[in-house]
Amino acid sequence: MFKINDNYLKLQGSYLFATIAKKVAAYQEANPDKTIIRLGIGDVTQPIAPAIIDALHGAVDDMGKPETFHGYAPDLGYEFLRNAIVKGDYESRGANISADEIFVSDGAKSDCSNIQEIFSLDNKIAVCDPVYPVYVDSNVMAGRTGEYNLATEKWSEVIYMPCTMENNFVPEFPKETPDLIYLCYPNNPTGSTLTKTQLQAFVDYANKVGAIILYDAAYEAYISEEDVPHTIYECEGARTCAIEFKSFSKNAGFTGVRLGYTVVPKDLKSGETMLHSLWARRHGTKFNGAPYIIQKAGEAVYSKEGKKQLTEQIAYYMNNAKIIKNGLKEAGYRVSGGVNAPYVWLKTPENMTSWEFFDYLLDKANVVGTPGSGFGPSGEGYFRLTGFGTYENTVKAIERIKNIKK
Amino acid sequence: MFKINDNYLKLQGSYLFATIAKKVAAYQEANPDKTIIRLGIGDVTQPIAPAIIDALHGAVDDMGKPETFHGYAPDLGYEFLRNAIVKGDYESRGANISADEIFVSDGAKSDCSNIQEIFSLDNKIAVCDPVYPVYVDSNVMAGRTGEYNLATEKWSEVIYMPCTMENNFVPEFPKETPDLIYLCYPNNPTGSTLTKTQLQAFVDYANKVGAIILYDAAYEAYISEEDVPHTIYECEGARTCAIEFKSFSKNAGFTGVRLGYTVVPKDLKSGETMLHSLWARRHGTKFNGAPYIIQKAGEAVYSKEGKKQLTEQIAYYMNNAKIIKNGLKEAGYRVSGGVNAPYVWLKTPENMTSWEFFDYLLDKANVVGTPGSGFGPSGEGYFRLTGFGTYENTVKAIERIKNIKK
Repeated sequence: MFKINDNYLKLQGSYLFATIAKKVAAYQEANPDKTIIRLGIGDVTQPIAPAIIDALHGAVDDMGKPETFHGYAPDLGYEFLRNAIVKGDYESRGANISADEIFVSDGAKSDCSNIQEIFSLDNKIAVCDPVYPVYVDSNVMAGRTGEYNLATEKWSEVIYMPCTMENNFVPEFPKETPDLIYLCYPNNPTGSTLTKTQLQAFVDYANKVGAIILYDAAYEAYISEEDVPHTIYECEGARTCAIEFKSFSKNAGFTGVRLGYTVVPKDLKSGETMLHSLWARRHGTKFNGAPYIIQKAGEAVYSKEGKKQLTEQIAYYMNNAKIIKNGLKEAGYRVSGGVNAPYVWLKTPENMTSWEFFDYLLDKANVVGTPGSGFGPSGEGYFRLTGFGTYENTVKAIERIKNIKK
Repeated sequence: MFKINDNYLKLQGSYLFATIAKKVAAYQEANPDKTIIRLGIGDVTQPIAPAIIDALHGAVDDMGKPETFHGYAPDLGYEFLRNAIVKGDYESRGANISADEIFVSDGAKSDCSNIQEIFSLDNKIAVCDPVYPVYVDSNVMAGRTGEYNLATEKWSEVIYMPCTMENNFVPEFPKETPDLIYLCYPNNPTGSTLTKTQLQAFVDYANKVGAIILYDAAYEAYISEEDVPHTIYECEGARTCAIEFKSFSKNAGFTGVRLGYTVVPKDLKSGETMLHSLWARRHGTKFNGAPYIIQKAGEAVYSKEGKKQLTEQIAYYMNNAKIIKNGLKEAGYRVSGGVNAPYVWLKTPENMTSWEFFDYLLDKANVVGTPGSGFGPSGEGYFRLTGFGTYENTVKAIERIKNIKK
């Protein structure tokens, strides 16, 4: 008689954004005349840039002709894309990463959740708190997180690194030594960043204790300040302790196009075994490459025209983030983020819980945001708004929030 | 100190097709004047059909305009595609499957390898022997297969169901009761099929012993004979024991486009828990949807024009398979398959091992095939050729094989 993976039954509730969607649908049904503005989910709204659309059309034409048709892609991704990535994202930052250390995939979410597979089940993970839920949930499914404590909202075998206003959202080294450390900078959900010195300290720490940093740099393109590293490989020693995840979702509007990549330096070793070999084996056995058409679109991201258009697109979203941040400040909220990331993180007023504030905002302003507690216990009392809406909706949403009668 | 997943170290050699690629590259380098014809890997060669190319261009245009831009896709896939699948692949066969039981993905390989995650680690798998390596390897990585015996080339905790000329490639029920049974029909690599009566017997068996059948129907579109089921849900009782995987790779030439789907009926339960809920949670947490553009291409597969063009494309490949099968017969080989699947399975002559025959064919005819032993111990002494080449190359390859001087 077959048995299920019981770890799945330990998962708490349903996925955060599914819960939000249900609440919003219920509200809309009860209030059909209200126009709801969604500034909650991290989904982009601007159309794909013209240079990328041109590349997509070109690649589609390729697939329609026998002489340029492409079947299965190479396991690690096409050379043309891996070379463009190395040149555009690493050489330009003085980071030493070679094309055969890049694994092209269908997105950072898949990679972030699958990477834990190549590690032992008794490895202990450390996560920032609040945190992107996928890091923890994928480890729950694997059976690495122990038991869930309903009172503390924590897993017994997970090390939490609180990031709150009190520590300026910079995690401290945990008391207990972790094996795998998930870091996401610029951060989702808090919008905060680490300076190069702060990230270097984490790299040094990981090398010292023999931990691996799983570094999610999905929002790298939104960095505007000088002293913020664009890749962890700007730090000395990162090649022996860090795996980096990058996404095209937010820098190029690819949430519905699906493309990302993971960097596994060949210097990452356990004894004689390269983590690179393990991930290559996983990639080759359980994945079959990103579509040719999509990889050609990815290549166009690094073209001269593509870069120019995407710089404008990012400026558009960051202008929204600025409108949100400034508007909320004017309305008396305590806010952070919104400078090197499209996320604005606010402290809920009057000791409201995150979900109370969610309902309050939905009801009073018909604006949807994301409750901070959905990202972990230290997210309680916080709330996330994003710059990914349209300019018009963002302005309207902030006006509504400012006009809420107290 | 982090530790790796030691199960990865148990994996035998590298992935079959990677080994072939290396051997071919070495031969080509040593013999730069030879023109090698590849009839080995199951990769398609014909361009994408015009109706699908049109749909791709249309969807790319959608992504370039604000009013038709698409961000994150729904977790399970777009309604338009899931409805087209239900109508085209299930209602038309009298099979009772609803749209919300369809999970759209980036391909059957990912799904076939990921599905084991929702089952307990102490479940025992049964596989046909020979078998598509991904089923076994994904279970090795998870730690479900015990130890590898170099002498027998078998895993201690895997139940093997031999499929050879002796039993006409129809597996018998294993002596030991399995929890999960992988079946692939039409079969890769043998090209064989099960009749409806034979498949019904497996469904009855699974329901009786409480096993789940993981049914890979990637080659369904190649079925030409009346009595061969196109989906396992044509069998009575399959909704309580079977998960089905379908691919667009081979029926629509999507190997480089990436699209597939998995059917998890809501009647599949362990106690009160629906497997559907577990797979939905996995899909939502560790995957982020297939690209909108690609799902629109998938929809076009079911259009009137699309169907017509793909019928022609499949006939083209099946004609190649016929040429291979008949040519090999004329050359004195014992062959099977090639009628309901694009795979021709031959017995190696003069007791050659599969790899000996690989080298022989590469050297004497400059033709690349796939050694049967790469698919499991009972594949030893067999060899796979596929109809996926071009007509011209297929004819040329068979001529060369016929002309080998004995």
